[in-house]
Amino acid sequence: MSIDYQTMWTDLGLDLTSHDALLNVLGTAYRDIYLAQENRPETMAYFDFVMSEVHGLRIKELLDEKAAGRKIIGSYCVFVPEEMVLAANATLVGLCSGADFAMEEVEKLLPRNTCALIKSSFGFKLGKVCPYLESADMIVGENTCDGKKKAYESLRPLVDNLYVMDLPQVKSANGKALLKSEYLRFMEALQELTGVAVTTESLRSGIKTVNAKRNAIHRLSALRAADPAPISGLDALLANQVFFYDNPARFTDAVNKICDELEQRVASKSGVCPVGTPRILVSGCPQAVPNWKLPMIVENSGAIIVGEESCVGERGTRNCVDESGSTVDQLIDAIVERYFQVDCAIFTPNTDRLAHIEEMVKAYRADGVIHYGLQFCQPYLMEAIPVEKALEEKGIPCLRLETDYSMEDAGQLTTRVEAFVEQLR
Amino acid sequence: MSIDYQTMWTDLGLDLTSHDALLNVLGTAYRDIYLAQENRPETMAYFDFVMSEVHGLRIKELLDEKAAGRKIIGSYCVFVPEEMVLAANATLVGLCSGADFAMEEVEKLLPRNTCALIKSSFGFKLGKVCPYLESADMIVGENTCDGKKKAYESLRPLVDNLYVMDLPQVKSANGKALLKSEYLRFMEALQELTGVAVTTESLRSGIKTVNAKRNAIHRLSALRAADPAPISGLDALLANQVFFYDNPARFTDAVNKICDELEQRVASKSGVCPVGTPRILVSGCPQAVPNWKLPMIVENSGAIIVGEESCVGERGTRNCVDESGSTVDQLIDAIVERYFQVDCAIFTPNTDRLAHIEEMVKAYRADGVIHYGLQFCQPYLMEAIPVEKALEEKGIPCLRLETDYSMEDAGQLTTRVEAFVEQLR
Ligand code: SF4
Ligand code: SF4
Ligand code: SF4
Ligand code: SF4
Repeated sequence: MSIDYQTMWTDLGLDLTSHDALLNVLGTAYRDIYLAQENRPETMAYFDFVMSEVHGLRIKELLDEKAAGRKIIGSYCVFVPEEMVLAANATLVGLCSGADFAMEEVEKLLPRNTCALIKSSFGFKLGKVCPYLESADMIVGENTCDGKKKAYESLRPLVDNLYVMDLPQVKSANGKALLKSEYLRFMEALQELTGVAVTTESLRSGIKTVNAKRNAIHRLSALRAADPAPISGLDALLANQVFFYDNPARFTDAVNKICDELEQRVASKSGVCPVGTPRILVSGCPQAVPNWKLPMIVENSGAIIVGEESCVGERGTRNCVDESGSTVDQLIDAIVERYFQVDCAIFTPNTDRLAHIEEMVKAYRADGVIHYGLQFCQPYLMEAIPVEKALEEKGIPCLRLETDYSMEDAGQLTTRVEAFVEQLR
Repeated sequence: MSIDYQTMWTDLGLDLTSHDALLNVLGTAYRDIYLAQENRPETMAYFDFVMSEVHGLRIKELLDEKAAGRKIIGSYCVFVPEEMVLAANATLVGLCSGADFAMEEVEKLLPRNTCALIKSSFGFKLGKVCPYLESADMIVGENTCDGKKKAYESLRPLVDNLYVMDLPQVKSANGKALLKSEYLRFMEALQELTGVAVTTESLRSGIKTVNAKRNAIHRLSALRAADPAPISGLDALLANQVFFYDNPARFTDAVNKICDELEQRVASKSGVCPVGTPRILVSGCPQAVPNWKLPMIVENSGAIIVGEESCVGERGTRNCVDESGSTVDQLIDAIVERYFQVDCAIFTPNTDRLAHIEEMVKAYRADGVIHYGLQFCQPYLMEAIPVEKALEEKGIPCLRLETDYSMEDAGQLTTRVEAFVEQLR
């Protein structure tokens, strides 16, 4: 990244030495994992550029938006409705973090037995290395898992403007009413922050923008059903990760261009791997940038990932919001309707998720499922056991993995993944 | 326990060999930990009897109640309102379990990284050793921590009649409305099960019975403020544990008799330990029968426990229900009012808990606090860090422990507790 950004980073309060170290690790990992892939779609060049400028140009854009009076909202969960954020003249960025940082400091504030995602988000704050977090005018937490719910109490004194959204635990009528009332409360908070009143037009426009982004990702997902797969799981995951950071319209455009190229690949029966390569659906916890550990191991083991049943993936992007409502309230109902279907393991029961995994296995012609669980993530690790059992009863092989962000278990994971892939041939 | 119970246990479907092994361990532990104490109140003889008959006479009583048409309700949490259970002509028993059992089988259904309480309750089911669980006509789960919330999904196929109650995560108006609506739904389910309609009279009578039980425990707690303490922490914990199993009226009576004896001790300045013995408040996760590990270690280290800020303790028994309402709905509102104050770490924020810890330190003249956290219990382990910080800022020494049910770490815990007690002298 260009040297010109140093002042910007300093102004944001970043620790330049640590930040440089992070960028170095990120750059090396990207080169070794992404750029080393063979036969990538040419249109992935856009994402190479995005990643090379992820702390540079994109941050500059956000700061320019801020200078022009727009607010930046940071979020840790797919339950924060980007539609409303856009409608209130603000920009939403994801803050979930995929690398260990400042762990010694983190473990003074959080138990050692906390999932890597939560620890990482604290590490990025305490280590002063995340320009997104430092650019945000409001940080939105949510009562999802116990880990995050309680961690926000400890995050509050560390950040300026933490807003916490309550969420239901059950998909009941009460649960839906709570979601709606919390979305209304959030919209009020947004309007107060931005000074911009949400209108039917602005909300519909926000909905259209986010739907377009989702539709582009849906198109990409569908193309991965082809054998040979036209794009690697690593590259598809990257698109799903950038979904949370990029300018929405530009992102939509870039993904659609990739899809154009992939369509040609599918038509000419060319892809990133030979026909008949074992096909894997990854299901479970979110994989945030730069957590590329699992797809790297899987795709280095002779398999190809054809879908992500994950919040950084189809759990996050499934279903669009109905655009037809003619009042703000009708549009909000449509938003509630859409988000209430997200099948996160924090819900009980969460039977839709199993159905979706099975649908995805069919739709993307997966040969097996790898359940990706972050260590100490109670909701997903608990749910993984009945999910694995149900899948195997239907003849769908399943490998249940539990890991974190360190590379210490990479060897052991590789051995298990290789054995699983062998079994799928 | 008498040989006559063998048929009863067989009829309940218990595994007699495993069950005998459990009773042996329990009996030995009770002798070594409880009966070995010096200078116990004579009236504790009641609890010695209760414990010697915990799987015998008490179960026979429950089965006799069942034969007479009464229903037995099992629960894992202090949020299940015993008042309503009694009003519907049913009996509530606690199912939380304090010993590891059938761990190999348990870890096929639950992640290894699950708290000991949850694992234990599964172990007692899978090992077929809990006559309370097997006597229950309805088992009530609740959406509290992620661990329990998700574990109930895996418990459902193992038990006959699992009822799950939703609970709020926030003490908002919405949260209170949810609690009320869930209590109403629970009352309906109870009435359907028992065929008995709850009336103002029966509900008020249930409230009075449970209030009386609480008042007796409050009286016991207050007497522990004396120096020398008139009763050990071990014995007081036992009373709090039996709170969940015994016949309520008889329990109230027994505790009041203990209090009569303790009042004499206080008047004559006699107690279970010398004046000036370091005094400890234990705060944190529930300690279920026969989990006596921490108080045993603490009281063998030259300190005395003077209070339990715990659901098996004052968090569970604090506050009575207003008995004055003149309709079922008013009484239910009073019940909601009381339970909504329970300061479990599943709530966010949960600032009342810190205030209560400080109040208890003052009321029971504690010299320090030991925070008792079960390994993998996210809510309490997370909350422990700011709690410790806040206490130490107020000059209240705090020792934060994380443990499970095994005795493997007993040596290490003893060393840490001894050092802490030394610091309080
Ligand atoms: S897994 Fe659940 S808590 Fe995490 S981002 Fe997704 S919806 Fe939110
Ligand atoms: S991975 Fe699991 S524990 Fe971690 S933040 Fe997501 S839901 Fe919570
Ligand atoms: S600690 Fe919380 S979840 Fe456990 S019994 Fe108490 S109130 Fe219920
Ligand atoms: S100890 Fe913690 S994790 Fe275990 S059941 Fe209680 S609240 Fe849940």
